[in-house]
Amino acid sequence: MAKKQKTFRPKPRKPRGFRDRTGAALLAEQQMLARITEVYKSYGFQPLETPSFEYTDALGKFLPDVDRPNQGVFSLQDDDEQWMSLRYDLTAPLARFVAENYDRLPKPYRRFQVGTVWRNEKPGPGRFREFTQIDADSVGAPAPFPDAEAVMMLADAVAAAGVPEEEFLVRVSSRKIMSGLLKTIGLDTADGGQSGTVLRAMDKYDRLGAEGVGYLLGKGRKDESGDFTEGAHLAPDQAATVLAFMECGQAGNAATLKVMGEIIAGNDAGAAGIVELERMAEMLDGLGYGTRAKVDPSVVRGLDYYTGPVFEAELTFDVQNEKGETVQFGSVGSGGRYDDLVKRFKGIEVPAVGCSVGVSRLLSALEARGQEIEESVPVVVLALEADRMTAYQKMAQELRAANIPAEVYLGGSGMRAQMKYADKRGAAVAVIQGEDERAHGEITVKDLKLGEKLSADIESNEEWRSGQPAQVSVPEADLVRAVLSALGKGG
Amino acid sequence: MAKKQKTFRPKPRKPRGFRDRTGAALLAEQQMLARITEVYKSYGFQPLETPSFEYTDALGKFLPDVDRPNQGVFSLQDDDEQWMSLRYDLTAPLARFVAENYDRLPKPYRRFQVGTVWRNEKPGPGRFREFTQIDADSVGAPAPFPDAEAVMMLADAVAAAGVPEEEFLVRVSSRKIMSGLLKTIGLDTADGGQSGTVLRAMDKYDRLGAEGVGYLLGKGRKDESGDFTEGAHLAPDQAATVLAFMECGQAGNAATLKVMGEIIAGNDAGAAGIVELERMAEMLDGLGYGTRAKVDPSVVRGLDYYTGPVFEAELTFDVQNEKGETVQFGSVGSGGRYDDLVKRFKGIEVPAVGCSVGVSRLLSALEARGQEIEESVPVVVLALEADRMTAYQKMAQELRAANIPAEVYLGGSGMRAQMKYADKRGAAVAVIQGEDERAHGEITVKDLKLGEKLSADIESNEEWRSGQPAQVSVPEADLVRAVLSALGKGG
Repeated sequence: MAKKQKTFRPKPRKPRGFRDRTGAALLAEQQMLARITEVYKSYGFQPLETPSFEYTDALGKFLPDVDRPNQGVFSLQDDDEQWMSLRYDLTAPLARFVAENYDRLPKPYRRFQVGTVWRNEKPGPGRFREFTQIDADSVGAPAPFPDAEAVMMLADAVAAAGVPEEEFLVRVSSRKIMSGLLKTIGLDTADGGQSGTVLRAMDKYDRLGAEGVGYLLGKGRKDESGDFTEGAHLAPDQAATVLAFMECGQAGNAATLKVMGEIIAGNDAGAAGIVELERMAEMLDGLGYGTRAKVDPSVVRGLDYYTGPVFEAELTFDVQNEKGETVQFGSVGSGGRYDDLVKRFKGIEVPAVGCSVGVSRLLSALEARGQEIEESVPVVVLALEADRMTAYQKMAQELRAANIPAEVYLGGSGMRAQMKYADKRGAAVAVIQGEDERAHGEITVKDLKLGEKLSADIESNEEWRSGQPAQVSVPEADLVRAVLSALGKGG
Repeated sequence: MAKKQKTFRPKPRKPRGFRDRTGAALLAEQQMLARITEVYKSYGFQPLETPSFEYTDALGKFLPDVDRPNQGVFSLQDDDEQWMSLRYDLTAPLARFVAENYDRLPKPYRRFQVGTVWRNEKPGPGRFREFTQIDADSVGAPAPFPDAEAVMMLADAVAAAGVPEEEFLVRVSSRKIMSGLLKTIGLDTADGGQSGTVLRAMDKYDRLGAEGVGYLLGKGRKDESGDFTEGAHLAPDQAATVLAFMECGQAGNAATLKVMGEIIAGNDAGAAGIVELERMAEMLDGLGYGTRAKVDPSVVRGLDYYTGPVFEAELTFDVQNEKGETVQFGSVGSGGRYDDLVKRFKGIEVPAVGCSVGVSRLLSALEARGQEIEESVPVVVLALEADRMTAYQKMAQELRAANIPAEVYLGGSGMRAQMKYADKRGAAVAVIQGEDERAHGEITVKDLKLGEKLSADIESNEEWRSGQPAQVSVPEADLVRAVLSALGKGG
C-alpha cells in the first residue's frame, strides 16, 4: 500500500526584522509623508525616484557602524554575475543619478525622494530591516546658503508633521570645525582611530554630560551596568580643550561661534567652518528660524561622508512611557554637507547638502505626545435578506456619492454576526433595512458609537431595548442626511 | 619608484531593467495612485503594508510564463540560511498575512495595498523588473457579490484615473465556465497541456479573431513573421464548440450567458459559474455599471490561481503612435476570484477575490490620449548680489506663505546663467532685484512663458529690449500680487 503523501504547508510568517502594518499607524505615516513632500515642493525641489537596486560598486560603503565590508546591505548576483544591492539610503543612489545625468541636469540640481530603504542588520525591538526615508538634497552649490535652506526645510518638515515650533530644535555644527578642533589638540583627523573615539565621545555629551564625556576622552568609562567603554586616552589639557568646546554652546549663536573660533584659532579649515556657520546663523535669524535653529558643538552625526555643516532636529518636550519613565526620542531628522560623494564617480568635487526626516521616530514621538490619527471608518450596510444585495449596494453607492466611505456586509452570516463585524471594523454607523423597514419604505440608521456609550450608562437590558435612543428610522430618501447626522456632520 | 595607484571609479549606471523617474511622469503616477486609493477607501477597504521580502516557501510559485522553478523572483539567503524573496505581486503576501492573522481579522477582510513588486525577468523595451501595483481584495466571502464589487471598484478606479466612462470596458468571464467548456469537449482540465493550449488560444480571440484562433485550436498557426505556433490539435467538432463559445459574446449579458449555458449544458461546475455571472450582471446592471461591464467569453487571464469569475479592464478608444499606427494598450486592470490561495497555509478553503490596476499601462494610455500632467514649477528668485541672500530667501518665503512654490538660485553664477537655469527648471516666473531695483525699493517680476512667446513674434532685438512687455516692476510690498498675476492667478 502506498503511503499517503503529506501536503507541504508553509508556515505563515514574516522574515525576521520585517513587519506588516495596518490601519491608523499606516495612515499616519502616509499623511506625514504627504505633508513633508508639500514642504519640499514649496521650496522648488523636484521629485526623483531611483530603483530599489543599484550595482554594488556604485552604491559604495558608507553605512555607519558596519565593521564587515559588504555587510549591512542585501545583495544578490544578477544573471550576468554582476552584484546588485538594495539601497541602504537615498543619498548614494542620488550620487549615482547625478553622475550619470550630470550634463543634462539644471545646476544646482535640487530633488526630493521618498522611498523604502533596506539594512541587512540584526533586527531588534523597534529595529526593522526595511523603512521609509524622505530626503531633499541640493547638488552643485557650495556652503553656506543651501545648507541654511536645508535647515529651514527640516524645521518646516518637522512642523508640518505636527510638532509645534516651540517643541523642537535643529542643532547645527560643522565637520570642518570639528576637524579644526582635533588638529588644535594635535590629532591627525585622517587617522580614524583616536579621532573617531573623540568624536564618538563628543556625540554623547547630550546624554552623559561633561563628566561622562570627560571619562570617555580620558581612560574610559564604566556605565551603570558595569560595561566598560575604552576612552580616547587624551592628555588632560587636550581633554580640557575638547570639553571647553562642548560647553560653549549654551549662549546665543554669535557668542557660541566666537568661543568656538577662539578655541580653534589658527586653524584654516576650522576658521572657514566658523564663517560658514556665521552666515547660516545670520540667514536663519533673518528669516525667523532663530528660535528653532541653534549652533551646538555637541552635534557630531555618524556618517563618514559629511564634510561641512551638519545638523539634527531634536524634540524638546518630554514624553513618559507606560512605566512613567521619561523617554528620549533622539534625532527625528538630520542632514549635512557631503562634497565628496559624486567625486567617487566623476573624479571632480560636486558640492552637495541634504536633509532627511526620521519618519518612524517622528511618528513614535507624535504618537507618544498623544497625537491621534483617526482612521476613516466606513459605514457598514447590513445585508439581512440574501436576495436584496443590489439594493444594499445601492445604499452604499448613495453614501459614497456623498463622500461617505461605505461598505456592504458580504459575509453571508446573520444579524448578530454582522453587528459584531461592524464593531470589529470600528464602524461608526450601521445602516439596516430588514423586512419590516422595507415594508414601510424605511431604513434604520444606528449610531454605533453613541450606542456603545449609552449601553455603558444604561442599567437594564429592558430599558435599553425599549429606548433605542441611538438609532433612528427614516424614509429611504433620507438615508444620506440621517447618516451624516449620525456622523455628526449633518445639519 | 612606487607606481601611482589608480583610484577605482565605478561607472554611474543602473542595473539592467531598472529605471530612474523624474518630473511629470512621476507626479502623474503619484496622482493616479492617490485617486485610486480614494476609490478603494470609499468602498471601506482598509490599508495594509506587507514587507518587500517574504520567505520563499511562503511566497509560492504562481508567476505566469515562468518555466523554471525559483526563477522569476529575486531571492537571497538570510544569515540563518533561510531563503527570502522579494514579492512579485501583492496577492501572495496577502495570503500569508491572512493565514498568519486569521483569528483576529474581521471577516470578510477587505484590504487595499499600494506597493512595489519585483520580477526577475529578462528586461526589454518598456518591460521593467520593478513596478508599482495597487490592489484591493476581499477575503472570506464567496462569489458572486464581492466579485461584482471588485468589478465596480475596478471601473471606478479606471474612471478616477481619468478615462471617461464611455472609453473603457470591464470584460467579465469565469474560470468555472471555462472548465465546463473544456469538460464539455472532453478535455481533462487538471492536465495543463492541451487544456492550457486551448485557453491560450481563446485568450488571443481579441487580436486574431475567429480564424486565427481556429488555427490555434487545430494544427497551429504561422504568424506574419513566419513563426509557427503549435496548435491544440482539437478535432473539428471540439474546435467548433470552442469557437461558438467565443462568438456568443456579441449580444447583451443575459443573451450571452444563455448561450454559454446551452453550450456547456449538463456540466455542474460550469452551470454554477453561469449562475454566478448572472447574479453579478444583475447587480452591475442595477447599479448603473451595465455599459461599463460586460460578460465576454474571450477573457481568460493568465494566472494559474484563479478559480471563479475573472475580469479585465480594457480601453475602447484608439490611439495612434508616432508612426500613425493604431496602438492596442491591452488590459489596464484586472482581477478575479482565487479561493485556494490561503489554503496553502491553512488547509482550509478561504474564498477571495481582488482587483488590480495596471499602473504603468494606464499611465501610458492616458499619456497617449494626450492627458497632460502639469508639473508644478517653482518661481525662481534670482540672486544677483552675493550679500543679499537672506533678502532673496525672504522673497521666496513670502511666496511660499502664499502657496506659491519658490526657490532662490543658489549656484553663484551671473545673470545669464541664472536665466538659463530658470529656463531649464521650466519656471514660469523669475523674480529679480538687482542694484537698481533695490535702490527704488522695487522688484521685477518676469513672465518667462509670455517672454518666450513674445520673443518668437518680435523681429528685432532692439524692438524686444525696448518693449520688455513680459516684465513688470512693482514695489516690494506687491511681490505676491504681481507673481500671482504673472501666473494667471491674480485679480
